[in-house]
Amino acid sequence: MLRVGVDENLAPELLRDFPPEVEIVRIPRASNTTHHVDLWILPFARKDTADTFRRLRGVQVVQSMMAGVDWITPWLPTSVTLCDGRGIHDISASEWVLTAILASLKRFPLYRDLQRRGQWDGQASVEEDFLREPGAQLGQYRILGDDLAGKTVLILGYGSIGAAIEARLAPFGVHLLRVARTPRISPPTPGQPSIPTDSPRTVHPVADLHHLLPQADILVITVPLTESTRNLIGAAELALLKPGALLVNAARGPIVSTTALLDALTRHRIRAALDVTDPEPLPPAHPLWSAPNCLITPHVGGSTPEFIHRAFRFGAAQVRRYLAGQPLENIVNESGY
Amino acid sequence: MLRVGVDENLAPELLRDFPPEVEIVRIPRASNTTHHVDLWILPFARKDTADTFRRLRGVQVVQSMMAGVDWITPWLPTSVTLCDGRGIHDISASEWVLTAILASLKRFPLYRDLQRRGQWDGQASVEEDFLREPGAQLGQYRILGDDLAGKTVLILGYGSIGAAIEARLAPFGVHLLRVARTPRISPPTPGQPSIPTDSPRTVHPVADLHHLLPQADILVITVPLTESTRNLIGAAELALLKPGALLVNAARGPIVSTTALLDALTRHRIRAALDVTDPEPLPPAHPLWSAPNCLITPHVGGSTPEFIHRAFRFGAAQVRRYLAGQPLENIVNESGY
Repeated sequence: MLRVGVDENLAPELLRDFPPEVEIVRIPRASNTTHHVDLWILPFARKDTADTFRRLRGVQVVQSMMAGVDWITPWLPTSVTLCDGRGIHDISASEWVLTAILASLKRFPLYRDLQRRGQWDGQASVEEDFLREPGAQLGQYRILGDDLAGKTVLILGYGSIGAAIEARLAPFGVHLLRVARTPRISPPTPGQPSIPTDSPRTVHPVADLHHLLPQADILVITVPLTESTRNLIGAAELALLKPGALLVNAARGPIVSTTALLDALTRHRIRAALDVTDPEPLPPAHPLWSAPNCLITPHVGGSTPEFIHRAFRFGAAQVRRYLAGQPLENIVNESGY
Repeated sequence: MLRVGVDENLAPELLRDFPPEVEIVRIPRASNTTHHVDLWILPFARKDTADTFRRLRGVQVVQSMMAGVDWITPWLPTSVTLCDGRGIHDISASEWVLTAILASLKRFPLYRDLQRRGQWDGQASVEEDFLREPGAQLGQYRILGDDLAGKTVLILGYGSIGAAIEARLAPFGVHLLRVARTPRISPPTPGQPSIPTDSPRTVHPVADLHHLLPQADILVITVPLTESTRNLIGAAELALLKPGALLVNAARGPIVSTTALLDALTRHRIRAALDVTDPEPLPPAHPLWSAPNCLITPHVGGSTPEFIHRAFRFGAAQVRRYLAGQPLENIVNESGY
């Protein structure tokens, strides 16, 4: 009988779709006991995951429910098949990115601060906290928030989450630039009807990044963290962005140099919306918390209750594939993708 | 020569598209002088607009740059043709609505508050400020923010802004319910390619509202303020909403009863995102500022610098139509639409 390991506290309803012919092994957290499992469904990013793995015997497959695997590969033997959560985050992560873009452009963080002070102050409030740009005032009308319409959005790391972001951006009337490790012409994606299918989507190689950055009003980072993407966005790359450009990091903190980002923010050169930071968690006194024009959420982008159900439906499908001797999906290769 | 009146401080670049054969009359704000103008382009919602009108002579047409005209009709003689800003707010207003929906569902106001306290606290923070719902915890995973995917959105006041909202919601995979004064089957709108064109869009009459409210996860109000829409959403209507439903008011404050809204919010029955309130501006000590699960922006939804340029391009087109003896667009009829 196939043994599937899960966290001891997993809600029973998340196992509803698992085939009845497998044995579910609930793995206790604080314990020294060993457990035999064939397929292990990882708990979400617990710090003791590597320790727990050392108590397991017979593991053939590790299924992560997260898109990035940089926190797993350092301790998982290469003899174990690792599958990531590619695809299951598309909805929640792309929704977070749209929220981050819109909230930043529309200056919702500033309005939230005004709300807490009980201050109805749309126009007069603008000077103090906004980009020190010329042209911020048009006659008597101060800038209150940008339109997304007409902006150019560069998606760095164009995979399934990137395509989901593009689909949701399409009706806003933006220009899209796509960069990925593998340059290609991307065919229309089924289920993404709002991406115009009449024009194939060009995906540029990372080597084109410096050429493309000056065109972007908004840079969305969704690339996985590997040794080749660490510090991919440093001082040189930030300097290529337009004044007032918005950097959105939905991937991993160390892809962006925190020093360079802090410098660009404090000089009011760019804006940022971050779901991930370096270090993480961000310590209470870290200067990023109060950097101007910077919105921070504590690594929650991919996490919604609906996501968790999608994740375990995918886990159940993987188990059925394994039982049937079919190839597994989302197997991670050596380059960490 | 046709005389077009504008505010004295209007930025010159906003008049770029006006035909050279008209005379631009800049109307001083603090003055007792009278001015002759044929067509008056109103300043944006200045409190002294009615006073200024009394100093004008010969006005045939008043062009407002706002969608709602409830602040004009009380003092404008019916002999003057009134044109509203229908259409020119579609982009900025629909973008505000998407931002308000997403920021509320993803709990960005809470994360902004945590950011200001330097607190990286995705999960533990949830209990204190969220809807007191059962099921908020799934195993070890607390609710961190909802998906928009799969939600049912009711648009109350389905006009050009409503169609623009629908277009931007479409790729998120939501169910749409449409209500307007005039029930109809709406044909596909050119320029809104992401609305599926295979199914005509049913627009329900306002009489169906009580029947539809219990189905909505999100209620978006974009109806104009008239005597028949004042207090359209009161205690009875709010009671019909699901627990945890989100009310989004992008129209005018008095369409929703503030007393009933405050009651529903303080009982944690619903959530709200408001760009407009009653009264407006909201006084500093008003309880709405600190009501739970309520996001407030100070009537800025339609206002972006790009909007102002779109507005004056429309104004210039109206002037050209007037010069050519063609019918004007957006003439407001007696019912205030």
